[in-house]
Amino acid sequence: MLDQVEETANTPEEEDSQNYQLGPKTVASVLYAVEIDDRARLIELMEPMHAADIADLLEQISAFDRSRLIRLYDMEFDGEILSELDDAIREDVIAILTPQVLSQAVRELDSDDVVDLIEDLEDAQQEAILDVLESADREAVEKALSWPDYSAGRLMQREVVMAPQHWTVGQAIDNLRNTPEDDLPDQFYHIVMVDPRLHPVGQVTLGKLMRSKRTTALRDLLEETFQIIPAMQDEGDVAYAFNQYHLISAPVVDDEGRLIGMITIDDAMAVLDEEHEEDILRLAGVGESSLSDRVIETTKQRLPWLAVNLVTAIAASMVISQFEAAIAQIVALAVLMPIVASMGGNAGTQSLTVAVRAIATKDLTGSNVWRVIRRECLVGLINGAIFAVTMGIVGVIWFGSPALGLVIAAAMVINLVVAGFAGTGIPILLEKVGVDPALASGAFVTTVTDVVGFFAFLGLAAAVLL
Amino acid sequence: MLDQVEETANTPEEEDSQNYQLGPKTVASVLYAVEIDDRARLIELMEPMHAADIADLLEQISAFDRSRLIRLYDMEFDGEILSELDDAIREDVIAILTPQVLSQAVRELDSDDVVDLIEDLEDAQQEAILDVLESADREAVEKALSWPDYSAGRLMQREVVMAPQHWTVGQAIDNLRNTPEDDLPDQFYHIVMVDPRLHPVGQVTLGKLMRSKRTTALRDLLEETFQIIPAMQDEGDVAYAFNQYHLISAPVVDDEGRLIGMITIDDAMAVLDEEHEEDILRLAGVGESSLSDRVIETTKQRLPWLAVNLVTAIAASMVISQFEAAIAQIVALAVLMPIVASMGGNAGTQSLTVAVRAIATKDLTGSNVWRVIRRECLVGLINGAIFAVTMGIVGVIWFGSPALGLVIAAAMVINLVVAGFAGTGIPILLEKVGVDPALASGAFVTTVTDVVGFFAFLGLAAAVLL
Repeated sequence: MLDQVEETANTPEEEDSQNYQLGPKTVASVLYAVEIDDRARLIELMEPMHAADIADLLEQISAFDRSRLIRLYDMEFDGEILSELDDAIREDVIAILTPQVLSQAVRELDSDDVVDLIEDLEDAQQEAILDVLESADREAVEKALSWPDYSAGRLMQREVVMAPQHWTVGQAIDNLRNTPEDDLPDQFYHIVMVDPRLHPVGQVTLGKLMRSKRTTALRDLLEETFQIIPAMQDEGDVAYAFNQYHLISAPVVDDEGRLIGMITIDDAMAVLDEEHEEDILRLAGVGESSLSDRVIETTKQRLPWLAVNLVTAIAASMVISQFEAAIAQIVALAVLMPIVASMGGNAGTQSLTVAVRAIATKDLTGSNVWRVIRRECLVGLINGAIFAVTMGIVGVIWFGSPALGLVIAAAMVINLVVAGFAGTGIPILLEKVGVDPALASGAFVTTVTDVVGFFAFLGLAAAVLL
Repeated sequence: MLDQVEETANTPEEEDSQNYQLGPKTVASVLYAVEIDDRARLIELMEPMHAADIADLLEQISAFDRSRLIRLYDMEFDGEILSELDDAIREDVIAILTPQVLSQAVRELDSDDVVDLIEDLEDAQQEAILDVLESADREAVEKALSWPDYSAGRLMQREVVMAPQHWTVGQAIDNLRNTPEDDLPDQFYHIVMVDPRLHPVGQVTLGKLMRSKRTTALRDLLEETFQIIPAMQDEGDVAYAFNQYHLISAPVVDDEGRLIGMITIDDAMAVLDEEHEEDILRLAGVGESSLSDRVIETTKQRLPWLAVNLVTAIAASMVISQFEAAIAQIVALAVLMPIVASMGGNAGTQSLTVAVRAIATKDLTGSNVWRVIRRECLVGLINGAIFAVTMGIVGVIWFGSPALGLVIAAAMVINLVVAGFAGTGIPILLEKVGVDPALASGAFVTTVTDVVGFFAFLGLAAAVLL
């Protein structure tokens, strides 16, 4: 029997919401409402929007529009929006909010969201927010801030549902029912079982708990996979563990092994996303950045990497200048030399990206490193040979010189093998000496391929053709 | 009161397990056991290891060792290991397993893990595995495979805990207790409420369920955030939604809006991880790749991008060849020209990486695109000016020609502004015409910066100095 057919034509807003993009029409309507100071319309438009989407909207509009919107929105401003905002504009937004709106917004948040909100703020703003919290919450937040940045202790929530290891299902459920709402975590999926010293010994999912008889011992329902997270562990490793072992939540312990909090998968997933963003930007030499950053901030982020590359480019040019005489005689060399260098750079970047990624996912280790390097060199050899033949033919056709064709072919093979070797070896070396391979490999690898490329090509040319 | 102090000295294995890396010592011990055919020792070593770590170990050792290990391990081989294995070696491993081990391994898995396992296998292997399943499981798997690759329908699990919207807590719990184990999802965190037409109308967390009185109506406990996923939705969008709205699980519906399954956050997190891997590799021009790929496969993955880059490099060289006469007269031009091109390439790659990432996270939209392009051009202008002055001075010092210094300075500014514009504009353009910006932008952007770089520098030099 056919169900009533749903209305088929989607409005543009519906289309956008199906692929989660904040539609230009929606944004335009909101901006128009702000333009004409129509608060009722603004609230009406923002009402169905999730805090995360409102945060996105605030990030996408200009600073001027943003401050007008916030002033108009006033007390409707939800605390959750603050949590969802990009670091880059968070300070600006907090500065615009009136003290009343700020207090109300912050008080709506859980302590771990407050921590996330204020940890990167300047001291004055941090103090202002801490001041509006109730003393119990303030204490919780300050305690969390005592853990290092990017540690499990900072990431965790302090409320955990626990039970002594000798309890039964019935006792656990009753205890749960009797605990005041405020002492419970906002979301929880397990009950952590602890021994008398408060050391976690296992966890039980709520699903199993609910399906079992009240007399069942909790210890008979323990989950097989159980990871304990030390509070000092780096949050990147925490996210890795959650992904690797398919964890949903995991207890956090202090250095005496006592249960002090819990990390849930949604926090780990957010960390994973941040780490990926950092990796991808770092490989391109972009620092922490956001689309809402202003011109000056963006310039400062881009400059260091470009400066390093200027130095390496000059170094490569010094190699070229050793062969000025050869170039003066055979200008074709100047035309063809960037090809060899650029192919080396591209191949090297391929190898380096694979290696950096594999190091991050812990797939490239002492056990397989030499096998991988060998593979990369062989791949460089084969691709080098293929392009050597291609460029050899191109060189002959373009400049009518078989000797030149041979020279460029030989240089191509050499550079691509070196690219494979350096592209894999340099990230590994950097990792070993404690430097983030994503950060530094690019400059080193392209320097190597440029220098080797120019030297091999021009050197062979000078030797063979002159 | 101080608790008993834990043993402080970590063995290397413990150190490794704290940062989740598969230690070389562990791997070496395992390989040694395989070497001397010591099955008992092998089983003893593998026993405490999680299936995901065993899979990592199999990926890191050579193909020869891998097949010896699997043959020795025999019936101890856990089905879960198969799920955790990299696509690249999964076929190889399945081919090595005896039919008995394979059947046993596959039967241990949930239907969605079987789907994930077999969806990329060749038909013969797929059939072999489907044959060993019980008919109900086989039907479930075949139904899942009827959904397109990378869709929500393929990703979801079919078992969902649901309840009619008029039920109370008591009815829901009793129903849960009376449902056979096999019909329940392996992990679940919500009960989905449905209307008489099987349309999801909300969900209730188990936590809330357990804490409420039996007489409470379910509809009074509904979660605020509730996302329904259409089965045809791309899994990347699903992962985005899970991250954006902090979902833990979400019901999946067919095109008539009826509940047919559920996606949980651990699956979404795995998708997020895969998508990130793809993005980061795609930007470097590497196709789907794995560290365990052989030389031939790797060569085939790297070749296309390198071939494209060869073409663009030749195009840039053709620009240079227009100025052969100028270079013959002033060889310094050949020495300096790669610097301008390379700085443009680096700046362009910075802009493009930021833009590609922002498009993927839906932060770069019609609402802010022009503001971002304008910012990138201004940043290019400022950085261009800074490096223009630097290179101008370098040019004068190195070659003693103020005119040359001015030429390279001007070319630098031009190229960096163009780099900012192209680096942001080209990904956006590609996105608009339906091409994956991560895939194609790199080649286009560096072509632009190379061509513009060479043309601006050599052109100005020819005009000014000759």
